[in-house]
Amino acid sequence: MNIYQYPQKSDWAGIIRRPVLEKKNLRATITEVFEKVKNDGDSALQYYTSKFDGVSLDSFKVSQEEIEKASNEVSDELKAAIQHAKKNIETFHRSQEEETKKIETVPGVECWRESRGIEKVGIYIPGGTAPLFSTVLMLAIPAKLADCKQIVLCSPANKEGAIDPAILYAAQLCGITEMFKIGGSQAIAAMSLGTETVPKVYKIFGPGNQYVTAAKELATELGLAIDMPAGPSEVLLIADQQAVPEFCAADLLSQAEHGADSQVVFISTDETVFKETLLELEGQLSQLPRKELAAKAIENSRFILMESLDEAFELSNCYAPEHLILAIANPEIWTGKIRNAGSVFLGNYACESAGDYASGTNHTLPTNGFAKNYSGVSLDSFVRKVTFQKLSEKGIQNLGKTIEIMAEAEGLFAHKNAVSVRLKSLES
Amino acid sequence: MNIYQYPQKSDWAGIIRRPVLEKKNLRATITEVFEKVKNDGDSALQYYTSKFDGVSLDSFKVSQEEIEKASNEVSDELKAAIQHAKKNIETFHRSQEEETKKIETVPGVECWRESRGIEKVGIYIPGGTAPLFSTVLMLAIPAKLADCKQIVLCSPANKEGAIDPAILYAAQLCGITEMFKIGGSQAIAAMSLGTETVPKVYKIFGPGNQYVTAAKELATELGLAIDMPAGPSEVLLIADQQAVPEFCAADLLSQAEHGADSQVVFISTDETVFKETLLELEGQLSQLPRKELAAKAIENSRFILMESLDEAFELSNCYAPEHLILAIANPEIWTGKIRNAGSVFLGNYACESAGDYASGTNHTLPTNGFAKNYSGVSLDSFVRKVTFQKLSEKGIQNLGKTIEIMAEAEGLFAHKNAVSVRLKSLES
Repeated sequence: MNIYQYPQKSDWAGIIRRPVLEKKNLRATITEVFEKVKNDGDSALQYYTSKFDGVSLDSFKVSQEEIEKASNEVSDELKAAIQHAKKNIETFHRSQEEETKKIETVPGVECWRESRGIEKVGIYIPGGTAPLFSTVLMLAIPAKLADCKQIVLCSPANKEGAIDPAILYAAQLCGITEMFKIGGSQAIAAMSLGTETVPKVYKIFGPGNQYVTAAKELATELGLAIDMPAGPSEVLLIADQQAVPEFCAADLLSQAEHGADSQVVFISTDETVFKETLLELEGQLSQLPRKELAAKAIENSRFILMESLDEAFELSNCYAPEHLILAIANPEIWTGKIRNAGSVFLGNYACESAGDYASGTNHTLPTNGFAKNYSGVSLDSFVRKVTFQKLSEKGIQNLGKTIEIMAEAEGLFAHKNAVSVRLKSLES
Repeated sequence: MNIYQYPQKSDWAGIIRRPVLEKKNLRATITEVFEKVKNDGDSALQYYTSKFDGVSLDSFKVSQEEIEKASNEVSDELKAAIQHAKKNIETFHRSQEEETKKIETVPGVECWRESRGIEKVGIYIPGGTAPLFSTVLMLAIPAKLADCKQIVLCSPANKEGAIDPAILYAAQLCGITEMFKIGGSQAIAAMSLGTETVPKVYKIFGPGNQYVTAAKELATELGLAIDMPAGPSEVLLIADQQAVPEFCAADLLSQAEHGADSQVVFISTDETVFKETLLELEGQLSQLPRKELAAKAIENSRFILMESLDEAFELSNCYAPEHLILAIANPEIWTGKIRNAGSVFLGNYACESAGDYASGTNHTLPTNGFAKNYSGVSLDSFVRKVTFQKLSEKGIQNLGKTIEIMAEAEGLFAHKNAVSVRLKSLES
């Protein structure tokens, strides 16, 4: 744990420096996987699934039976919770639909844009210790709202050849019909290239380990789009005198438990809150099942005492956190100060887990400082906005001369002529 | 010129196949440029500007004097045209501003999002035969509307050490204050890494040759965002019996004159219009100053006679054109058929040059089939949408149980605990 008391501004850069992600050179490995999947299709997937996941599968496609079985295995309590979260996520993402606004920029010249869902999208859900059914909701719900025609989900099978029932339940609840038991870079390769059973998609979403990340990078070079660059999860919490140390500690730990590389930054303008949060943290940490992971993240965490909220927001903007929690009085009056952040949580009752699961906002957010240049996933991520324009005779007459002059000045005479022939036809 | 009459659906893929872009391996060259710019800063820029552009510059920054001089050199007629275009582009892009909508997903749980301009953006404007001041408008106007704090423009100097006056005039008119006489991959390297005089930015926009494209790719690996992947410009025009062959030919040629690799696709459902457009094309082509370039593009162009508009739209969606012109009766009733396109032009008077210059829509659009997964540049490209949420005591009470159940099912107990401590505190 690194503690800084009223640091000089000149020290800020050092304090908020993120560890440089060691990008292992996986290029050769990933290229080989893509080559093999391209050449051998499903049999390459079989080969890698056996090699990397240690399971031999006759068929990758999750059957209707498996989906029904999964649904029976999920408790009614969890089903109800997932449905509740789904409803909220739907409500918020539906509010992101853009109304078509026809704008008459010049009399007779109408411009507007319309959204179109990306026709084919892929969702990757990692395996591992935690079954990330919440990520299924965060990606499948906006994909459906966006009217994506084909939504493909890949997730690795466990040793028994199955995907966690909660993942399958969430997927079918959201209307996904094509689910495949494929993991790792071979899953990304399959969705990028297409095989006998896995459809090729245009954009791939979802988290994953370094192999998945490297495979998504390679996919972009093949012309696919991806949700955003990857990095470890992070939170920055700003607390003033009215913050509740118990809550602050719990929020910091909920970030820390993601993994040893999770980034945790705590800023307080109040010494008592600062000290008590540190104490609370130790107490709560010892109770956690994932305390080893969380303890490692806390070791690298930064606790900063600062003079003022103005300073705190300035530092936060430099850091550009994925999650920003404002445990301060009247947080709304401070939001104008926020320039760089993924998702912001206001007040003592907006814990990060609310946004992670069920409030309605998306939890796929820019990490590693990417909040400076990327937005989190939203309905926008699943659509393209197509522009339209209509010119009447009057429209081209009003705008024609301007276009002709500009085209000529750029030396593009065919561009000019496309206007001239129309203007001339209207003269007669 | 390739002519297809009523082709079988099985032949479509071959007909609309784009030439595979030969990605020359510029990796080593570009990496060297970035290395040198990183190590030597401005002096590396000097070195490359001398080496690649053949001009020796004492200072890269365009001075106030140079801007004033440029303004004096631009004709009043062109100034008025640029101002007219600017007004329209501003009007349309301002209409893309998103109103903040606070959504109460559950009583006591409010979610919304707010736009924030990307703080530092870079605009690259290529040199060459045509001074692309229109691209300055298309990128600088939304950057300003988005409230980007720092907007940097790079464009190569000509042999006299100057940037085309129309480019400088457009840039200062849009409020850009930092303009640099730097071109090619070294300009992208400078904006990606920063030097003594050129600021490092977070996102880079603008067209360029294969070196610029490769440099933008490398920039993304350094954590920068870019506008979109590059490819040659293209148009697909759908014409029915009421289309005007003279207009159609002019539109196809305005695409063809961009370069020998421009993609031109013409589809007609009417044999007379089809034949007459071919005739018109030959006549108009011979009149063009850039006829050699245009003729090469026309050589590779595709002219397709089809049975029905339904078929035409289906083929168009497979091709996913950057520009789609609908020279058909009642084009509005057909727009619902469009799934993949960058920008759409409706009716006989909406020529592509209107959108290229002055109607208000953006001309930076997805090419090479990227209309399947990318939108064109808009105000959205210059902002990030930050999500916010506020939970009241009632909010966490309404949502808490759901979060607890989901967090526990994912094995994330600290996430659960962040809710539990709050619920507990409210019990007493």
